[in-house]
Amino acid sequence: MTEPRAVVAAFIAAIEAKDLAAAGALVAEDISYENVPMQPIAGRDTMVAVLSAFMGPAVAVEWKVLREVAVGNVVANERIDRFQFPGGWVELPVAGFFEVDEQGLITLWRDYFDLSTYTTQMAAVSG
Amino acid sequence: MTEPRAVVAAFIAAIEAKDLAAAGALVAEDISYENVPMQPIAGRDTMVAVLSAFMGPAVAVEWKVLREVAVGNVVANERIDRFQFPGGWVELPVAGFFEVDEQGLITLWRDYFDLSTYTTQMAAVSG
Repeated sequence: MTEPRAVVAAFIAAIEAKDLAAAGALVAEDISYENVPMQPIAGRDTMVAVLSAFMGPAVAVEWKVLREVAVGNVVANERIDRFQFPGGWVELPVAGFFEVDEQGLITLWRDYFDLSTYTTQMAAVSG
Repeated sequence: MTEPRAVVAAFIAAIEAKDLAAAGALVAEDISYENVPMQPIAGRDTMVAVLSAFMGPAVAVEWKVLREVAVGNVVANERIDRFQFPGGWVELPVAGFFEVDEQGLITLWRDYFDLSTYTTQMAAVSG
């Protein structure tokens, strides 16, 4: 499976299943994982550690892809990333850009979002 | 001119020239202009008024398109929107999604960005 849209779809499905081993297997060892308001995260192992830390407490994860466009090795999508915590749901509108290499591995994952939209909700459900 | 990428390129060029009449002529009367962390802005006249209010004090405007993908009537891009004020430059990473209709008019303009990245810099250059 190397078709970029299929790779990104499989990656998102793995995230929703909270199967971070499967998600990690779909990215290159030297992936750059970039949450634009923050510093880029370098490498598969660090990406998995970061995802584990912030998704670990989630009861459920749903990433709704509202729209997706793909050209060549690039996939861009608009999403609502939803996380259910014991205290309630957090919903974050996100625009994501992905690059997929010829081996079907994600080499770049860059998400644009408003950080305070996330932190404000996280504070509310953690209260 | 109705090719979506050409329409978006002309729109961005008009913004950079601070020619809001030209920018307005490239959008549908009922455009939805959405800065995702904030409420959508409805209609061409309101869009032009909002752009005028926040770009008016800018000495220069440069929107660097880092990447763009287009499929059908949709254009998605990654940009650095730069604004020069008397007190200095403000630089905002943005992911934009545009829909262009058959008349070559932009009917949707939705930008994803981190609001505090903008407001923090604005406060600094306005100090």
